Amino acid sequence: MSAPLFLVDALPEGNECTLSGPEGHHAATVARLRVGESVLVGDGLGTLAEGVVTEVGRGVVQLRLGRRWHEQEPSPRLVVVQALAKGDRGELAVQAMTEVGVDEIVPWAATRSVVRWREGRGERSHQRWVTTAREAAKQARRARLPVVAALATTDAVAQRIRTASAALVLHEEAGEPLSRVAPPPTGDVVLVVGPEGGITPEELATFTAAGATPVRLGPTVLRTSTAGVAALAALSVRLGRW
Amino acid sequence: MSAPLFLVDALPEGNECTLSGPEGHHAATVARLRVGESVLVGDGLGTLAEGVVTEVGRGVVQLRLGRRWHEQEPSPRLVVVQALAKGDRGELAVQAMTEVGVDEIVPWAATRSVVRWREGRGERSHQRWVTTAREAAKQARRARLPVVAALATTDAVAQRIRTASAALVLHEEAGEPLSRVAPPPTGDVVLVVGPEGGITPEELATFTAAGATPVRLGPTVLRTSTAGVAALAALSVRLGRW
Repeated sequence: MSAPLFLVDALPEGNECTLSGPEGHHAATVARLRVGESVLVGDGLGTLAEGVVTEVGRGVVQLRLGRRWHEQEPSPRLVVVQALAKGDRGELAVQAMTEVGVDEIVPWAATRSVVRWREGRGERSHQRWVTTAREAAKQARRARLPVVAALATTDAVAQRIRTASAALVLHEEAGEPLSRVAPPPTGDVVLVVGPEGGITPEELATFTAAGATPVRLGPTVLRTSTAGVAALAALSVRLGRW
Repeated sequence: MSAPLFLVDALPEGNECTLSGPEGHHAATVARLRVGESVLVGDGLGTLAEGVVTEVGRGVVQLRLGRRWHEQEPSPRLVVVQALAKGDRGELAVQAMTEVGVDEIVPWAATRSVVRWREGRGERSHQRWVTTAREAAKQARRARLPVVAALATTDAVAQRIRTASAALVLHEEAGEPLSRVAPPPTGDVVLVVGPEGGITPEELATFTAAGATPVRLGPTVLRTSTAGVAALAALSVRLGRW
């Protein structure tokens, strides 16, 4: 198994590093690190370092850092516009998409999203997606945390589509299969995943007018929490990322 | 949205069809079908028919069937050996893999599977995977239900590998990326997904001795409930299924 990854705000200049706060608690109490164990330390912005545990205190772990390296931001960036979904389906989608390498997730208040993010609750729901992405990125040993954008309206999604290198809307009635679309070499590839009830004809018209292509993902109907991860896997093969 | 799919033991010879029992209850009470609505009816073995609701009773729905067609079994078949996983992770994997088109799922009691299926509980756990696959196949509008095989030991998995056209073991330390493996045109492609704690060196040795190739799926570490669906999506693109 890979060494576990812990996140810090910034990697220190020297080779001594302290995990404290929630990461220290996680390292000392949950992961129960012992002196001599190997870990990875990252800033979530592309820089990773190998570390060895030199001391374990109450909620604090001391590390000696070794080799460090920086991973460039991938090109093109994979951006998924994910419609809000019922129950824990939104978080399951964020978790799985983070594992397979999404670069940015844009929560979208679609017409047929049963769930709404409003006022105080909206802030908490957004924070839950951020936390889910962070935990999933640690579990997946990602050098870069995915960005979780602010909640977007349909107009804001159309604006993202206009400035993207390519935009695809997953739609079960589309004629074009996703696997036949040639992804662009740079910029943002925006993938739109609708809610459980589907994208409305008006939303589809807005997105295609903004430049998006409706595409089909296989012969079956995918749940909103499965569509994003399946599309990212398919695109990653096409892009040679995998 | 696609018309909802209901399953019957066998499609009738004529054009009258009755949904009763659990499917009738689901159609009448949960989906609340109304006279004139369109549905799909299938036997889960490849035959589908279009239907229109002609009468709704208490837990019983009458349909008039129209066009019917048969989908051949895909070739090659995609078989996932899924290690037993904690909590609801096994069922989440079965659900998502069924949506993206897995043909057979083999539950595997891996050395590091924290969960065990034993005696009475084993039968119930197996039945839960069968039910999850059936519900997911309906949701995805699949003509064929995936097979959920009996719980396999490591030796039984090795035997499946020996008789497969190709076998791949997802392993984070493998050098070969999954996307570079050319899948065979016929027979069974067996994909092995390990448990949360990973595949042991002994299991890996057993599987490679039986003819399996260790492959890597992207640069990140995938959770057991994400690995199967991501690998199936990647293979479906390679096979031209998507």
